[in-house]
Parts: sequence; C-alpha cells; structure tokens
Amino acid sequence: MEAVQSSVDMIWVMLGAMLVFFMHAGFAMVESGFTRSKNTLNILMKNMITVSLGSILYFIVGYALMFGPSSFGLIGTQGFALTGVEDIGFFVFQAVFAATCATIISGAVAERMNLSAYILLTIAMTAVIYPVVGHWVWGGGWLSQIGFIDFAGSTVVHLTGAVAAFIAAWKIGPRIGKYSGKSVNTIPGHSLPLGALGVFILWLGWFGFNGGSTLAADPTLVPPVIANTLLAASAGIIATAGYTRFRYGRIDASLTMNGALAGLVGITAGAANVSFFGAMMIGLLAGVIMTEAIRLLDSKIRVDDPVGAISVHGIAGIWGTLAVGLFDTTNGLFYGGGTEILGLQAVGVLAVIAWASLSTGIVLFAIGRIVPLRVTAEDEEAGLDFSEHGSQAYSMQDVLHGSPFGRNDSFAQRLNQLGEEPSPQKTIS
Amino acid sequence: MEAVQSSVDMIWVMLGAMLVFFMHAGFAMVESGFTRSKNTLNILMKNMITVSLGSILYFIVGYALMFGPSSFGLIGTQGFALTGVEDIGFFVFQAVFAATCATIISGAVAERMNLSAYILLTIAMTAVIYPVVGHWVWGGGWLSQIGFIDFAGSTVVHLTGAVAAFIAAWKIGPRIGKYSGKSVNTIPGHSLPLGALGVFILWLGWFGFNGGSTLAADPTLVPPVIANTLLAASAGIIATAGYTRFRYGRIDASLTMNGALAGLVGITAGAANVSFFGAMMIGLLAGVIMTEAIRLLDSKIRVDDPVGAISVHGIAGIWGTLAVGLFDTTNGLFYGGGTEILGLQAVGVLAVIAWASLSTGIVLFAIGRIVPLRVTAEDEEAGLDFSEHGSQAYSMQDVLHGSPFGRNDSFAQRLNQLGEEPSPQKTIS
Amino acid sequence: MEAVQSSVDMIWVMLGAMLVFFMHAGFAMVESGFTRSKNTLNILMKNMITVSLGSILYFIVGYALMFGPSSFGLIGTQGFALTGVEDIGFFVFQAVFAATCATIISGAVAERMNLSAYILLTIAMTAVIYPVVGHWVWGGGWLSQIGFIDFAGSTVVHLTGAVAAFIAAWKIGPRIGKYSGKSVNTIPGHSLPLGALGVFILWLGWFGFNGGSTLAADPTLVPPVIANTLLAASAGIIATAGYTRFRYGRIDASLTMNGALAGLVGITAGAANVSFFGAMMIGLLAGVIMTEAIRLLDSKIRVDDPVGAISVHGIAGIWGTLAVGLFDTTNGLFYGGGTEILGLQAVGVLAVIAWASLSTGIVLFAIGRIVPLRVTAEDEEAGLDFSEHGSQAYSMQDVLHGSPFGRNDSFAQRLNQLGEEPSPQKTIS
Repeated sequence: MEAVQSSVDMIWVMLGAMLVFFMHAGFAMVESGFTRSKNTLNILMKNMITVSLGSILYFIVGYALMFGPSSFGLIGTQGFALTGVEDIGFFVFQAVFAATCATIISGAVAERMNLSAYILLTIAMTAVIYPVVGHWVWGGGWLSQIGFIDFAGSTVVHLTGAVAAFIAAWKIGPRIGKYSGKSVNTIPGHSLPLGALGVFILWLGWFGFNGGSTLAADPTLVPPVIANTLLAASAGIIATAGYTRFRYGRIDASLTMNGALAGLVGITAGAANVSFFGAMMIGLLAGVIMTEAIRLLDSKIRVDDPVGAISVHGIAGIWGTLAVGLFDTTNGLFYGGGTEILGLQAVGVLAVIAWASLSTGIVLFAIGRIVPLRVTAEDEEAGLDFSEHGSQAYSMQDVLHGSPFGRNDSFAQRLNQLGEEPSPQKTIS
Repeated sequence: MEAVQSSVDMIWVMLGAMLVFFMHAGFAMVESGFTRSKNTLNILMKNMITVSLGSILYFIVGYALMFGPSSFGLIGTQGFALTGVEDIGFFVFQAVFAATCATIISGAVAERMNLSAYILLTIAMTAVIYPVVGHWVWGGGWLSQIGFIDFAGSTVVHLTGAVAAFIAAWKIGPRIGKYSGKSVNTIPGHSLPLGALGVFILWLGWFGFNGGSTLAADPTLVPPVIANTLLAASAGIIATAGYTRFRYGRIDASLTMNGALAGLVGITAGAANVSFFGAMMIGLLAGVIMTEAIRLLDSKIRVDDPVGAISVHGIAGIWGTLAVGLFDTTNGLFYGGGTEILGLQAVGVLAVIAWASLSTGIVLFAIGRIVPLRVTAEDEEAGLDFSEHGSQAYSMQDVLHGSPFGRNDSFAQRLNQLGEEPSPQKTIS
Repeated sequence: MEAVQSSVDMIWVMLGAMLVFFMHAGFAMVESGFTRSKNTLNILMKNMITVSLGSILYFIVGYALMFGPSSFGLIGTQGFALTGVEDIGFFVFQAVFAATCATIISGAVAERMNLSAYILLTIAMTAVIYPVVGHWVWGGGWLSQIGFIDFAGSTVVHLTGAVAAFIAAWKIGPRIGKYSGKSVNTIPGHSLPLGALGVFILWLGWFGFNGGSTLAADPTLVPPVIANTLLAASAGIIATAGYTRFRYGRIDASLTMNGALAGLVGITAGAANVSFFGAMMIGLLAGVIMTEAIRLLDSKIRVDDPVGAISVHGIAGIWGTLAVGLFDTTNGLFYGGGTEILGLQAVGVLAVIAWASLSTGIVLFAIGRIVPLRVTAEDEEAGLDFSEHGSQAYSMQDVLHGSPFGRNDSFAQRLNQLGEEPSPQKTIS
C-alpha cells in the first residue's frame, strides 16, 4: 500500500522533472527566436551547456548546499555528490530547476557576452548562488523559518535568475547599435515562430514546474495548482494583448508571448495558495506590469535585455511573490488576513535581491579578471556564431535558388581543417 | 486504497490534459507552417488567444453549460465559474478540449479574417456553441440518452469545430488570388518543417486526447485506446502516401501530413470500441476520404481552407463517427449488430451539423454588425502581420549577409514610439 | 491493491511509450535541420512513413518474432497481429522502439536514397531485422541466456540501426560533391535551430526510452535510471564542447549537439546498472569517441553520413554496451568483477554487427533488383523535394518582400493538376 503510493508519487515527480527539463527547449527557442540569426548557434550552445553544467554541478555541489543539514539557516553542509542522499527522484526534479534559474541569464546577455565568461557565471549560479536562495526558502533556511511563502519559485528560481541577469546585462552593457545618443533602437528577433513554439513549450513545462512542486500526487492539491497555472497564463496573454491594443492600438505579438510567461512566473509563488479568481488577477496584472517594465528598462534605465527576461522573470516574479500576501485564501490581505504575509513576502524579495545582486556582482568582477566579459566589437558585428563557433545557424541558399550567400562549416569541415588531412576544403551547397 | 486509486486517476487525467494543451502548439505550428509568412504572427496570436480565452470562458460559462444539471437534455444550468464543482482535474481536461474545438477554425479562416471578429467568434464557440454539443453527448444530454457514441470527440470536438470553420470560411470568402475565373490557384505554405513538427506534436497530444478520455487509469482500457490511436494515425499516413502516389504519381507531403491527422480524427470516436484492425481500416479510409474532400472543397465547392482543416476535422470526423456503427466490436454492422448504431451515429452527426452551422451563422451575422469579418484588401495584400500587428515574423537579413529587407518593430520599438520618449527611432539589423 | 499497482505500471509504460513516440519528432527535426533544404520534405516524409510503417509491421509481424515463444533462442514464433497477446501496453512501448531503430537509417542515407528503396528497407528492418536482435536480447533468446546486458537498447536499438545505416550509406555512396579527388567537402545543414530543437526533444524522449524500460514504476529503480540519463547526456555535451574547444580552438555547435545524443546512446545499455559517476564517465567518453568517429568515417573511411547517425548511434552504442562490463556496480571490471561481463558484452556487440550487416546487405541487394537504391544525379541536384514530391519545404518569398523565387505546389494544386478540372493553374505568393 505504502509502496504503491510511493510509486505514484515517484511517477508524478518524474513527470514534473521531465517537463521542467523540456523547458530548456522552450528557453532555447524563445531566446534564439527573439534574437538575430547571426547569434543563434551561440544562444543554443549557451542553453545546452547551461542545462548540462547545471545538472552536473548541482549533483556535485548544489544539492548539498540547498538541502543538506542547515548551518545557521544559511546554507546546507552535506550531501555532496549525493552522498547519503536517498531520494534520487527529488534530486532530479531539483537539478532541472537549478538549471532553469541559470538559463534565465542567457537571454538577457544574448548577442554580446563572451561564452567563457557566461560558462563561469553558470557554474557560480548552479553551484552556489541559486542553492543558497533555495536553502533559505525550501531547504529549511531562515526565510522558511519566518514563514516566507514561495510554492514553486517565483522568487527562488525566477527572481534569482532575473537579478543575476540584470546585473550581468547592466555590467556588460547594451548591444552595439541599441542606443545611439538619445535614440533607442529596435533590434528585431529573427524568427518569432520559434519564439512562439518556445512559449508553448515553456507553458507545458510549467505544469510540471508548479504541478510537480507538490512533490506528491495529491488528488486534492494538484488539480487546483494546474488549473491556476492554466488560468494565470491565459490571463497574462489576454491582459497583454488587451493592454497593448489599448495603449498602442495593436496587439503586440512579442509582448503577448511574454505575457503568457509573465502570468506563469506570477502564479508560481502562489499556485497552491490562491483561488481561481486570484490566479486570474495575478496573471492579468503580471501581463500589464511586465509590459510597462520592459518599456521602462529599455528606454529609461537603458539596460539592454534582448528577450525581456529581466521583466518577465524578475518583475513578474516580485509581483507574484507579493501577490501571495494579497490573495492567499487563508491569510492574504484581501481575505482578511492583514499585512503580515505581505510583509514577510517583501522581506524575502528584498533578501533575495540583495544576495543575488551582491553575489553575482562579485562573481562577475572575479570572472572579469580571468576572461573578458564581452566579445570584441568586431566579433559582435560579425555575429557570435561566426566568432565563437566559426559557423552559422542557417544555410538556406537552396531555398533562394542558389544565391551564393550561405557558407558554414559544419562538423566535418572543421574537423578536417585541423586534422592531418592535407586536402583542400570547399563548401558546396 | 481508494485514495491511492484517485491519485492514480488524477495523474492520468492531468497527463492527458497537459498533452491536449500541447496540441495548441501543434495547431500553431501546422497553421503557421501551411500559410504564408506575411500572416504568421497573426496566426500565432490567434492560436494563443484561443487557448487563453477558451480556458477562461470555459471556466466562467462553458463548463456549467456542458456538465451542469441538464435542462431538458439540451443544456447545463449550474456550475458557472466552477461554483459547486469538485473535480477540478476534470475541468482542466475539459477546458483544453474546448479550446481545441475553437482553434480548428483559425486554420480555415487564416490569412484574411479580421482578428477582432475571430476573437468574438472564439468567445461564442468556447462559451456556448461547443458546450451545447458537449452537453448533448457527454453531459447527459439527449444524444447520450439515445445512445450516440463518441468516445473522445470526432463529432463533439472535431466536427463541431470544422462546421464552424466551414461556415466562417464560406462567409468571409476566399483569399485574394485563390480563384481567378475558372482557375484555382495554389498558395503555398511558407515552412513545411514547422507544419511537420506540428503534426508530430498533435499526434503526441492525441494520445492524451484519446487516452485521457478514459478519465481513469484503467489498465485494460487505456492500452488498447493508445494502440488504436497509434495504428489509425499510422494507417492514415500510409493511406494518404499510397493514395497520392497512386493517383498523382507522387507522395504528396502536405496531404500525407494531413493524413496522420485524418487518421487521428477518425479514430477519436471509436478508440475504445473498435479492434486493432478496425482502427487501421478507419485510419486508411480517413486518409483517402480526406484527400478527396480537400480536392472537392478546393476545386468544386470553392471554399478556401488554407490548411485543410474542414476536411481533416470535419469529413474525417463524420467518417470516424459513422465508422463506430460499422466497427464497434459489440454491436457494429460488421460484427453482426445491424444498422441501429449506424443510424444513431448519423442522427448525432446531423444534429451537430445543424446546431453548429446554425449557431455559427447567427453569431457571424451578429459579429458582422459590430466589426468587419474580414480585413481590407489592402491589409490582406500587405499581410496581417503588418496590418494587424505592425510587425513581421521573420527578420533574417543577417542570414542573407545584410541585405536590407528585414524591418520589424519588436516590442521595445512600439513601446517607445508612443511613449514620452521624443527620441528618433531606427531599426538596425 | 494489485489492480492499483497495475494501473500505476500501466501509466508509467504508456508515458514512456508517448515519449519514445515523440522521439520521432526529434529525429525528424535533427535530420531535416542537419541537411539541405532542398531535401527537407523528403526527410520529413521518410520519418513519418517510418514510424507509421514500423508501427503497423511491428504489430503484424515484428512483435511475434521478437516476443513470441522462442525457437532455439533465435526467433519468436507466435503472436502475429497480437493474436493471444494480452499486454497491449507493452506492445505499444515496443512498437515505438522498433520504429526508432529503423529511423536511424534515414539520417545516414539522407539526400540521395530513393524513397521506394528506403521504404522497402524500413519494412525489412521493423518486420524482421530488428525483431530478431530484440528476440536475442529481450525476448528470451540466446544472448539473454548467456547473460548479455542491454538495459534499454544501446545495442538492440541503436547499434542495430547504425549498422544498417552504415551498410546502406556505404552501398549507395556519398552525395554528389561530398568527395572530389582528395578533398572532403562540407555540405552544411540548413537550419541548426531545428536540429537543436530535435536534440532537446530526443533527450526528453530518452527519459521515456530508458525510464520506461523498467516496465514498472519501481520507485527505487526509476529515479536512478532517470538521473543517469540526465547526467550522461550532460556529460556528453560538456565532453564534446570541451574536446572540440581543446582540439580545434572552438566549441563546435553541431558536434556538441551530437554529443548529447552520444551520451544518451552510451548510457542506454547500463542505465540501471551503473552509478552516477559511472554514468558521467560513460557520457564523457561517448562524446569524445563520437567526435573522433565522425572525423574518421568522414575523412578516412569516406562513408558519407550527413547527420552523424552512424557514429552517434553505432560507435557510442558499442561503447555504451561495453561500458557495462566496466562500470556495472556489481560485476563490472572497475568494481572488482573481472572481465567476464566485458567479454559477454563484446560477444553481443559482434553478434549484432554480424547479423545486422549481413541481413541488411542481403535485403539491400534484393531491393536493388526491384528499384534503384539511389535517385538519379539529376534528381539529386534538383533536390529530392522536387524530384520525389514535386514540391519544396519553404516558400518564404514574402519574407524577402516578394522576390519571385518561391514556387511550390502544395496539396490543392497537385490535386487539381491531375483531376477533371481543366482550369489553368498558377501559383501565387
């Protein structure tokens, strides 16, 4: 009987882990679709390396720091390389979460950050920066002790990633051509269908992100969590579509796609604590707030975030975390519970912003001593696909009936180039 | 014990719901891949808004009309905003179904329907038109009382959507250039790889569509349902590939992709009632019938359906529903059961055609009084991405080494344009 | 109680089957992304037809040969068309495996193999060649009797497919232009974002491939299997990225993507038998070995494998199978168990290579008597999309503001062409 229940819970958590893993495909598609095609291979590599490095480092270090026995409520101290850890399913679920947090950065620093520097930052994120926050909230640390609520990670995962993304994007500066004097220029993404596919994949993955965070197949808890996730994302889309229509006269496609994600980030903290109407309100406001945040960041603060990651994950993450204080059906402000939860939520948000910005700042400073944080202007103009990988993402000359623009060195060519083979090389189409 | 069983069933239904949700990604990819790139953002927006609006409206209104206590077997009357509803998982599963029905329309009216009019039609579909049919068949209504069989929705979901699609496509007329005098012109889709990806995603989702419709993880019922779904889709592909090869000398790629979908639509009604051979026969014939239906609709009836949605979902839906009368292993005509089921199935089909065409017609008439059903000829020529969203789906100039054709206003630009920022704007690549 | 357990196990196996099914979308995306766009429809059709034909033939013939009562440990003899078979869920899971094995070939013979010949080969693979290997290892045949270990199919699925792929690619020869005199030319893939998406989808599917191979939702076995799968794939990426960086000065994007797959193929045999560190070592070495194998095959052996399938599935498959002899935690060489397992693993590998190469060779010889194995040079230059399907995958003229290069005949046009309709046809954009 208990054995059967543990099988059931295992299936649920494994399904959740698979779906959260698949979110990395979603991030890869969103980030490559919303940026230029000359940087596509690079963004794909960043996403693949993030989930890989993240999984391995979280296995070796991160899990222990996050879920090991607590030292003063600040950090875990045992379980490195899973020594003594029994619940392997729980590890898998948490490992793909850790990688998710790190990959948020890659969108904000796209098209200009040096790959080596990015990799070093990813190491710090998945091994230390994220696990510390995770320990505070989910590993028995001080924030969980004071009663901070973050069901599936609006703050733990999304805000942490977004703060690091903000610090990194601010430190490395905008893409060449983004700002010229007073003017703020648009750099369009190269394939919004890929972006839209990514949004759908992320949304699907989020059912595992929030649903799996129940950690057990509880038939009374899971369905409302899934329903809240569906309704908040839907509300995020409707809100952004409606708001951009109202404010600018047109439904903006890119923003509306981000509206789904904002709704999802928003509901993540409170998915198990709010009503269906609460979920819809959270999603609606997440869409509007995110829209204004993107504008503010882009035009006023002038931090260049090619895919809107900081606003989607950070601002909507803050909103979703605070919203628990408003919409929690037992103690939320709108349900007669006073401002206590709201205050605690604010404490958590501020603490995570402080830790993530400080630690990321220090790490970036250290990385900058080892490798340049940013590619050269020449490499940036040429595109990171060429300068970092000597290749390109598309080679569609045959679509264009043989116009001779496509030139790329796929695996075989590069292998030959540097091997013993003295043979002349040419690329044919 | 019972608690464990309810956990198990919950997992199964939630998995089904997630997969059916993911079908919206499949529809988005099929519909954008099979249409022109100047209308891609628009079709993506239509798909995203459909699932969002659909979920919310089905929550507020649709579920109650479909599953509330029946009034004369015609319509449900309670449970608005899920008041008094306990099985939230069942709601989630049904909500993504409702959105599926509505999104069928978007493919048939692609590239010319006004977005506002489409949104109003979606509201009517998910709030009323679909829930009424659902009530008749699955909510205890009159069709279920007389014994009409539609296991997972060949008629309830697919035929209903396709009838509405037919009425809408017929009423708004063909795309400019589709028909000129006697000639029937081809308007090729812009990216069949996206279309193929969409077909695979839809096929995956269908395992949840049919498998989840068991509503419980019954180990004797589910595997045959999944096997039937696999075999019918496979047969649909083989049939269409073979038939187009036989009839036209070549395996037609677009039709073969649609053949998978026709097989899937066909098996949906009888997935739990027919044998493996029955499933394959249904899939085979679905592929052939769909192929001829597309031809007939396109050349003779001259209703312009860019993605073949009417034939795939409507004609294969009718075939699948009637086929239960032939292949049902207990009472089907081919199993010695006489023509009784076949007759009942025909009654159901006719009733749904009557209701869906009448209600859609009235709704479209009403919508036409508020907003134009169709964009202007000028906007259609320019593309709906530009005219409705002021943007475009692709911006691949860097793929082409800097040829200056790509110009799009992504989120930041449009936000700036209308804000306080007096800064000059330019788009860079 | 037992009923509940069987529900739970059923869910797990069905989930696994769905995920393995979805791997076909991954193969389709990898193979089309890594080849030229003039052959994209053709590769998509090959993938769709493979999974369809594979499912149906495995139902009719393959399952019986694989899992029927054994004749001398060589082949199964009963259960054709599932007669007398009770566990339908197990059939579904195995059917999508069979199709996976067959689809490996399509990548290696891409861009030049005649579609009819390919279809005939697929029939032989899924009906006979693969089921025989499967019987030997999983159906109670001689390899299972002597103790050969292949948990989820590094050898049964991947090596078998890769050997057939090698024989076929070698027999039909390289693509025109691949080798000219001493020079080895690169033929770049047309869309690496599609390829990357395919890799993510395959990785997701592999959780079902390995995880589902437990055939029961065992809460002590499944999570380590999933963790090993995650860690080995991650190690494959890190290894390939690092190795190409070290050897060629740059992280090669295509190879790194294949590195994930090599890690996955490698861990497939031992996913249930090795430790986490073992999994990572297997993945690391799989990435390096595969990289060198691609180079060797391409430049020295001069067998043209457009997507690297032979090295990824074959060489990494051999490595993974042998690695069980090294890393098996109970009897592996590195765990004090001597060389016995290693020897048995080598026997299995050699036996499968012998059978698969011999049978594929004979089958290809026979096919060559019926149809040409390869398209004509003229058709190859024109592209198989045009020559085999009379169409093309992309039609993006509107992206390029109306340049008149896009011309394709989608479904409607071809239907009209050969129908009664005497109407003139033209293609508009």
